[in-house]
Amino acid sequence: MFEATKVGRTVSKEDFKEQQEELRTLLLEAQRELRETNIPVVVLVSGVEGAGKGEVVNRLNEWLDTRGVQTFAFWDETDEERARPRYWRFWRTLPPRGDITILFGGWYAAPIENRFQDHCNDAELDAELNRIVEFERMLIQDGALIVKFWFHMSEENQKACLNALSRDDRSRWKMMPQKAKFSEHYRVFEQVAERVVQHTDQGISPWHLVEAKDTRYRDLTVGKTLLHAIRTRLSDPGGAPNQGAATGSLDMPSGAQAQITVLDKLDLSKSLATPKYKTRMTELQKEINELAWYAYNAKRSTVLMFEGVDAGGKGGAIRRITSAIDARLYRTIPVAAPTDEEKAHHYLWRFWRQVPRAGYITIYDRSWYGRVLVERVEGYASDTEWRRAYSEINRFEEQLVGSGIVLLKFWIHIDQDEQLKRFQDREETAYKRYKITADDWRNREKWPAYKEAVNEMVARTSTQHAPWTLVEGNDKPYTRVKVMRTICESLERALAAGRPAISGYVPCGDKRTAAPAPSGTPVEKDQKGKG
Amino acid sequence: MFEATKVGRTVSKEDFKEQQEELRTLLLEAQRELRETNIPVVVLVSGVEGAGKGEVVNRLNEWLDTRGVQTFAFWDETDEERARPRYWRFWRTLPPRGDITILFGGWYAAPIENRFQDHCNDAELDAELNRIVEFERMLIQDGALIVKFWFHMSEENQKACLNALSRDDRSRWKMMPQKAKFSEHYRVFEQVAERVVQHTDQGISPWHLVEAKDTRYRDLTVGKTLLHAIRTRLSDPGGAPNQGAATGSLDMPSGAQAQITVLDKLDLSKSLATPKYKTRMTELQKEINELAWYAYNAKRSTVLMFEGVDAGGKGGAIRRITSAIDARLYRTIPVAAPTDEEKAHHYLWRFWRQVPRAGYITIYDRSWYGRVLVERVEGYASDTEWRRAYSEINRFEEQLVGSGIVLLKFWIHIDQDEQLKRFQDREETAYKRYKITADDWRNREKWPAYKEAVNEMVARTSTQHAPWTLVEGNDKPYTRVKVMRTICESLERALAAGRPAISGYVPCGDKRTAAPAPSGTPVEKDQKGKG
Repeated sequence: MFEATKVGRTVSKEDFKEQQEELRTLLLEAQRELRETNIPVVVLVSGVEGAGKGEVVNRLNEWLDTRGVQTFAFWDETDEERARPRYWRFWRTLPPRGDITILFGGWYAAPIENRFQDHCNDAELDAELNRIVEFERMLIQDGALIVKFWFHMSEENQKACLNALSRDDRSRWKMMPQKAKFSEHYRVFEQVAERVVQHTDQGISPWHLVEAKDTRYRDLTVGKTLLHAIRTRLSDPGGAPNQGAATGSLDMPSGAQAQITVLDKLDLSKSLATPKYKTRMTELQKEINELAWYAYNAKRSTVLMFEGVDAGGKGGAIRRITSAIDARLYRTIPVAAPTDEEKAHHYLWRFWRQVPRAGYITIYDRSWYGRVLVERVEGYASDTEWRRAYSEINRFEEQLVGSGIVLLKFWIHIDQDEQLKRFQDREETAYKRYKITADDWRNREKWPAYKEAVNEMVARTSTQHAPWTLVEGNDKPYTRVKVMRTICESLERALAAGRPAISGYVPCGDKRTAAPAPSGTPVEKDQKGKG
Repeated sequence: MFEATKVGRTVSKEDFKEQQEELRTLLLEAQRELRETNIPVVVLVSGVEGAGKGEVVNRLNEWLDTRGVQTFAFWDETDEERARPRYWRFWRTLPPRGDITILFGGWYAAPIENRFQDHCNDAELDAELNRIVEFERMLIQDGALIVKFWFHMSEENQKACLNALSRDDRSRWKMMPQKAKFSEHYRVFEQVAERVVQHTDQGISPWHLVEAKDTRYRDLTVGKTLLHAIRTRLSDPGGAPNQGAATGSLDMPSGAQAQITVLDKLDLSKSLATPKYKTRMTELQKEINELAWYAYNAKRSTVLMFEGVDAGGKGGAIRRITSAIDARLYRTIPVAAPTDEEKAHHYLWRFWRQVPRAGYITIYDRSWYGRVLVERVEGYASDTEWRRAYSEINRFEEQLVGSGIVLLKFWIHIDQDEQLKRFQDREETAYKRYKITADDWRNREKWPAYKEAVNEMVARTSTQHAPWTLVEGNDKPYTRVKVMRTICESLERALAAGRPAISGYVPCGDKRTAAPAPSGTPVEKDQKGKG
């Protein structure tokens, strides 16, 4: 889920100067308005070491009117605190209505640290996270606005930052002794962080993931996000759940490098020559055919899910799969506008209906992600609805994977030029003409909005148990082979490993015993066949 | 929490006949109106064996228009269901908007059964319950109304019911073989049930606890609760969280025996003669003084909380305690209207502030329960706010107890005659006059509303880790001795046992190791003293 914080967003000195000036005025204005209301604001600052949380807080204190702003760090517990229930120290710091409190780490620091140090297991961590969700919900229902920032950067960048800090005499004192270990254990820390952020990323108190490498981008993003969150809350004094701004939504820092997304990191020039493509595809089709049968015998189900830019080549990729697999084993679900019956239910209902039974494959051509893509961009779903959907979708997928289903999610991406070429081609070719509608042209105009929606979607729903596969789509042969290869590799891995349980997902409500490991992994079976 | 379902509520044949007629008409009307809306209704029927869940469902089907009502039981899983993620079977049964689905047990059946059979532990159960809470919240946010019934009766009544069923030839077939074991393990089952009900009793989808012994009372309560829930939801088409009727709220079945509460079960004639009182009180005061010092040394804190009818004698009981304990060890917090500063925070904030530090005692004269008593009855808190408060309070107390605090909650009760006598006495005695105000007389007029609020409060917040002690208050000596005795016994037990963790409450966020067991329990210390 942190891919979106490693794309290299930056803001130039000039852009920063210009935008900072306006931002400061607006922040002070918002703060003044806030004082007249009954809204207490809690700003939570978390993230990887070296991301400059302290600098951000200093910046906020510089920008805001410090009357009405209090900052708390939770280092060692005091005697007073140790002698009372754990949350006493947090209750002490909660702001009165109209004020702002900035918390370093807050109630997240201890659970993350404890899990990272292996002082508790995933299930215990989850239990604590559930208590946090309830605690935050309670404050929000009472009118509070909670704005949570997670600062992140790539492993190399973190290393560079920490090295720079320790080299510099003026900043060496900032390097607390334990900092070094964090960079060593970057991956472990990131996994814990993902679990924590994902579990507590509720529609009513979302996390804002901020790329922290460029300090100007980082500070501007924090300021603008906070401003947006306060303003949205002020405009809805009814006390509706707070809608913080999405990371990088359109009123975020501007400038050429400030709005690049995970999609810009794709190398769309990747391609595959035709002869090579043909050989490889034939191999892969044979392989997927066999794997589908193995999976059937092992009673492992598969869900393949395709999303992507219009004319990106979803259909072509799907056809290469379906033409290789026995038609009795799969079903393709093209997802268009919902039927009347589907509309009469929760939006996930139509997808639950189609969940494959053990051993079968369901291919979704477009999916439940419509909620956070087209429904978001076109305004079919309200702000509250699509923001809530991220965690609903994560829970849904957790259930699929937890029950043993192999879930693969593909985003097939092409650039705007390629899309134009394909659209024109469709209009000119008789048998392709049915594929292009006025809608497609209209969607094309909303390219930046879709791009931002995809970026946030990947940030919030690319999880350890159900990661997104982003596919470079400009070259069709390359696309199809990458899709096929990913499926084959994942299926093979899953079948070889037997049925995995999501760590921490204990199906207490499930009386069935775990499915037996498949009688023979593909490899073993091959050997048998040879024997 | 099930005390309120064992008070013997009944409805006479005549009352039933009369109320049923009106109810049927209104239910059909509500159902017709419902069909025009986009609200799907889920009715969940759970409870102890022998409570007649099947009969209730038959009754509902008789009262409602069966077009638009579907009923599902979840016995053995079908092949189809076993081959898919667990929740698939529930998604299949969800009603379309405008319809009603009645579910036997629903998603609660498996977790309860599995915990009861010891197939999972408390922490695993809690994790599943958290998933249920999220699932229900998701449906409710999508516009659904979920009405959950828990049918309960005392152990003896259950035994009688099950025996009657097995004696009768016409009903013997209903006695599924496993029923017998439930009555044997009544207590275990009740503990699991309490955990489940309490954990999933959220303001937006509360449980309705229904006393099931009298079938007429049971059926009328279900019908009226359902009617009330549908109507409330219809009157707020905005899709606000659903507010089911409280068990036994004022439009519930009427008739002399239909509205008795846990308070009616108290034997207010209990008394204690003066000489005996004096000896006992002296003993107890000596004991509590010592225990307070032991607790101080063991760093165990104590929270004593007093609620009760006006003029019930809270002050007198508290004075007997405070006069016995060293003044450095305790603090008394009289809870009146909140200060400005307190009003600027969440309502629990003022109580968190006063949580005692390790080894000390805080005595609250009135408490956080004001939220569900005076604020509910006088309308200071909105419906949503006080309904939500039950689970907020349970969580708060769980944290206190989980951190090792000994928490005792007293409700001191007197009857209306006794109150009148004491009010008049206060007006006549010069030095007592300050104690009586016009408010007291006004509150007295709302006696039935307060009684119902207390009944629901006890039902929803008398938990295993923090049970209520209901004290018969008509005779002051008896009251004071019972309070003192309860405190001494609880403190002694707690100090002897060392610090308890709430089962399933794993403080992942807590780096501190559990406090060491007190160096000497009171008993041991006494012996040392003698040695």
